[in-house]
Amino acid sequence: MPGRIDARLRELAITLPDAPAPAANYVPFVRSGATVYVSGQISRDANGLVLGRLGADLDVAAGAAAARTCALALIAQARAACGGDLDRIVRVVKLTGFVNSAPGFVDQPKVVNGASDVMVAVFGEAGRHARSAVGVAALPLGVAVEIEAIFEVA
Amino acid sequence: MPGRIDARLRELAITLPDAPAPAANYVPFVRSGATVYVSGQISRDANGLVLGRLGADLDVAAGAAAARTCALALIAQARAACGGDLDRIVRVVKLTGFVNSAPGFVDQPKVVNGASDVMVAVFGEAGRHARSAVGVAALPLGVAVEIEAIFEVA
Amino acid sequence: MPGRIDARLRELAITLPDAPAPAANYVPFVRSGATVYVSGQISRDANGLVLGRLGADLDVAAGAAAARTCALALIAQARAACGGDLDRIVRVVKLTGFVNSAPGFVDQPKVVNGASDVMVAVFGEAGRHARSAVGVAALPLGVAVEIEAIFEVA
Repeated sequence: MPGRIDARLRELAITLPDAPAPAANYVPFVRSGATVYVSGQISRDANGLVLGRLGADLDVAAGAAAARTCALALIAQARAACGGDLDRIVRVVKLTGFVNSAPGFVDQPKVVNGASDVMVAVFGEAGRHARSAVGVAALPLGVAVEIEAIFEVA
Repeated sequence: MPGRIDARLRELAITLPDAPAPAANYVPFVRSGATVYVSGQISRDANGLVLGRLGADLDVAAGAAAARTCALALIAQARAACGGDLDRIVRVVKLTGFVNSAPGFVDQPKVVNGASDVMVAVFGEAGRHARSAVGVAALPLGVAVEIEAIFEVA
Repeated sequence: MPGRIDARLRELAITLPDAPAPAANYVPFVRSGATVYVSGQISRDANGLVLGRLGADLDVAAGAAAARTCALALIAQARAACGGDLDRIVRVVKLTGFVNSAPGFVDQPKVVNGASDVMVAVFGEAGRHARSAVGVAALPLGVAVEIEAIFEVA
């Protein structure tokens, strides 16, 4: 029985990425009570990692596309945290977006909007979240964007 | 009927800023159970955004003043999250302060103290919070400080 | 009566550092419900602060050792939050690792593994946590690593 959010993903022609576990002593998500903390997801699309610095190697549109890939990975991890049933997501509570930024780049919010927009497209009002967006000097493997999330689950 | 914290704000001659909603697919705060997550608030005073990098454009005192404006915006959002009644704030749980830092600037804690101090001035013991302070390469719109918060509410 | 985790610390020959309170208007930890938020702990060993930037002053191994000292300080604070009884830690929920990074340094995950590894060594499966690792331009006092944590406690 396909769920409501699964149906919405199909309407949006979104295929979630795999939700692999990290090869280290941490895990992709931890549930504590009704709260699921999802580890920082780095920008990655069908061609591999999305690398580079905003304001130097990537423009805002490319950064927003990179942020969207992080959001899809976060949703994939949230689905795993819910035993495959995305309808158990009560709320996207919080996103923290780290944007690999060259000096002088100040459009971090427009970049992270790429993630915020897909959350609302997929979850509707329940996708509206608190958020911080900051620029950082360097990210793992040189990726453009890393985003972590907190979800409330039923 | 003015509340206890409202009275304290008057004693301190503090007028909270407005608590506007962002013009994007995120919201200024989300409540999940007894926890309110407030989105990152950027430094802004009566003259507009407080811009610049610590260690280059701003000194520690100016940075602490900028951090104070973030804290006031966080309190304003927390008030909105409590339907206007700040007495429902049980605890300021956590602040995360991002300080726009030139290379070599290492006084992020003194900057974020500007926010911590006003939390304790306003909320007393309930204002004492866990905290992280880090230096970042760039912040939205070029602001000096961005701070996010977690509150526990009744 | 020594606890299970205390015994494990002895097996590992780990002596936790002191858990001092900051000299400012914030506190080392706040408990809210079953959740303990521990303030960002900076890298510090028996010789004092561990200073420097990864990719410039410190290599990955030295960075991982620095991250391990942050983790031990986090555990020390968690112990204080539990009234001295580490067996009350239900889960290490989340670590956020900030790595002082020179431009081009992209091995933040390997650095933060120094913290993740000790969490699992000490707490076993309960030590597996969600995590983010990012590179930042500057950290308090010039330290190499700062890590904050969320624990679930009984």
